[in-house]
Amino acid sequence: MALKAGKGAAAPPFLVMDVIAAANARAATLPPGAILRMEVGQPGSGAPRGAAEAAIRALQAGNPMGYTEAFGLASLRARIAAHYGQKYGVAVPAGRIAVTVGASGAFPLAFLAAFDVGDRIAMAAPFYPPYANILAALGMVPQMLACDASTRFQPTLDMLDKLDPRPDGLIVASPCNPAGTMLAPEELAAIARWCHANGVRLVSDEIYHGLSYGTVAESTAAAFSPSAIVVNSFSKYFSMTGWRIGWLVLPEDLIRPVECLAQNMFISAPHIAQVAAEAAFDCTEELEANKAGYARARAALLAGLPAAGFDRIAAADGAFYLWCDVGHLTNDSLDFCARMLEGAGIAASAGVDFDRDRGARFLRFSYCGAEAAMVQAPARLREWLGR
Amino acid sequence: MALKAGKGAAAPPFLVMDVIAAANARAATLPPGAILRMEVGQPGSGAPRGAAEAAIRALQAGNPMGYTEAFGLASLRARIAAHYGQKYGVAVPAGRIAVTVGASGAFPLAFLAAFDVGDRIAMAAPFYPPYANILAALGMVPQMLACDASTRFQPTLDMLDKLDPRPDGLIVASPCNPAGTMLAPEELAAIARWCHANGVRLVSDEIYHGLSYGTVAESTAAAFSPSAIVVNSFSKYFSMTGWRIGWLVLPEDLIRPVECLAQNMFISAPHIAQVAAEAAFDCTEELEANKAGYARARAALLAGLPAAGFDRIAAADGAFYLWCDVGHLTNDSLDFCARMLEGAGIAASAGVDFDRDRGARFLRFSYCGAEAAMVQAPARLREWLGR
Repeated sequence: MALKAGKGAAAPPFLVMDVIAAANARAATLPPGAILRMEVGQPGSGAPRGAAEAAIRALQAGNPMGYTEAFGLASLRARIAAHYGQKYGVAVPAGRIAVTVGASGAFPLAFLAAFDVGDRIAMAAPFYPPYANILAALGMVPQMLACDASTRFQPTLDMLDKLDPRPDGLIVASPCNPAGTMLAPEELAAIARWCHANGVRLVSDEIYHGLSYGTVAESTAAAFSPSAIVVNSFSKYFSMTGWRIGWLVLPEDLIRPVECLAQNMFISAPHIAQVAAEAAFDCTEELEANKAGYARARAALLAGLPAAGFDRIAAADGAFYLWCDVGHLTNDSLDFCARMLEGAGIAASAGVDFDRDRGARFLRFSYCGAEAAMVQAPARLREWLGR
Repeated sequence: MALKAGKGAAAPPFLVMDVIAAANARAATLPPGAILRMEVGQPGSGAPRGAAEAAIRALQAGNPMGYTEAFGLASLRARIAAHYGQKYGVAVPAGRIAVTVGASGAFPLAFLAAFDVGDRIAMAAPFYPPYANILAALGMVPQMLACDASTRFQPTLDMLDKLDPRPDGLIVASPCNPAGTMLAPEELAAIARWCHANGVRLVSDEIYHGLSYGTVAESTAAAFSPSAIVVNSFSKYFSMTGWRIGWLVLPEDLIRPVECLAQNMFISAPHIAQVAAEAAFDCTEELEANKAGYARARAALLAGLPAAGFDRIAAADGAFYLWCDVGHLTNDSLDFCARMLEGAGIAASAGVDFDRDRGARFLRFSYCGAEAAMVQAPARLREWLGR
């Protein structure tokens, strides 16, 4: 008798992962450096040295690295809570901090605690694909708000007011992936207050905080709403992707529910990653140097890409992405990216992963790889496109 | 306007985690060693030295510990696949292995890929609480098969045949938690074949493999059914709990669906844990020494507990648990455990976490702590109960 598969089995792939595999395969046939890796959403730098050394010391001292409490080591939770005071001037008690298995592990906890099967959760398009894919796997319904350069690819109060029926939740991200754009503090505040007033659970993805370039100020939804769920991560500014460590700032009403879910679904975040993450807060010099490298790569790309034909780039406020409208060059960005990998030796992500309707005319360059490699991109593209 | 919470917010806690917190609080007021920790389901030993050293070496060499592919490092997948040939004589291609964030992270992937909201998934009671709690959080329906000592607390073909309607899935565990009992190879084979023939997806939890004491042979569902999902972990035999690393053996039809779900929900398992886990396969001497310690603790407890009044113990085939019927001592095992912690200085898990209907007359002793501590338990209990 044939066995059924669940609807979850229809979850779309996170295509970036497939692009990485294709770029790996192509790079394996060529000399080192032949392929510029601009498809990857992870820093090339690895964890800061002080974080890796803290992990080494703990292992050498024989720390058995057992389970921690479900919400993480008390010292790490306290350090994260203190970060909200230091960085944003917002008092967040450690009891509202949940250390998670990356931001990826945080989303299912947040969604399951806040929403039910069939609930509608709004988000800007383009969007980070796992938002929609996780929601769909859980039987929830992503509701796209088509955004463009006129609102810096971010949702507005006006868009929210027009939603009928009102959604059950809203996901915002600032800086966002793939567009790299940000919400100004007053925009985030207005959205957070609208959500709270209208019974819409706000999920604020703040994983790219620390990586913005001065065009817009960083602000946290925790400052504006007691009901918002904040998601953050050690993967981006702290450069600790494969350690799988992130955190949630939870509203009071979801603390115990999320704790119960986390006990069942994760037991705890990786112990060694918690030790390293705590040390990462003391690695500011190295992390700021990484950021300065991104800033230089960003500046070189913004200066050079237009002459190479990529002149419609979303406001590059933060993260390490450039979201380019290539509608004048192709109507099939998947094919365009495949040809660019072959012809220019540059791997980038086709927009279809991030915007199902309009993604065929967009692509995403990531500039968190080695700075010396990133800055070569404009010349290669100019040559490939014959400009 | 009040914000709703999702039904997932009603997930019951995994009570063992709360028991651990209570025991921590009690232990903090007393000299070291005053509390015998028999509530914890994790080895006291930590990762084997060779695994920790592999992690140290990788960090010292500057491995940036980025994301791996969603299913894990190719070398680790190959090593796990080879393990099936070496241990069980079963050919499992590496392409069917998915490295996961512990077994805990494996269950949501398996459940979402195989089942839908409303599907019924059968399991023996008593059971590992997160099976039911994760299913419930995902909108699926756990269906309990009340088991007792007459079937070694395991389900039988006869129980399955009587189920009307047939469930969509079945979870088995051998050795199981909390009972520590096993299915004989011919019993597991018969159940696996019944499931395959009847369109019931079998999920076989094999995380305690490697920890059995010769009363029943270990066997894997992968040997008996092409449609079964096998869950395993580095947390138990390999003693790597807080590293959060486990694996799935997937049936062919669920490989791509689970890969897509994993890309979205986890990105990858912790990189450093993957490095350490691969090395753990070479740490047989240390791991067998750990196991010999469990075997001695088990023997001491089985010899001493009956005279202390705990004489109704499930067949202690494997894992590191003793499931004790204390119905002659209490009708409220939660209260009994609280008094035992206070009076005898022994922390154990009340049965209510593992069996909602009959758990008030059971408790679980875990004997994976330090051997010297475990063997003190019978004398303390004898004194506490005045025997």
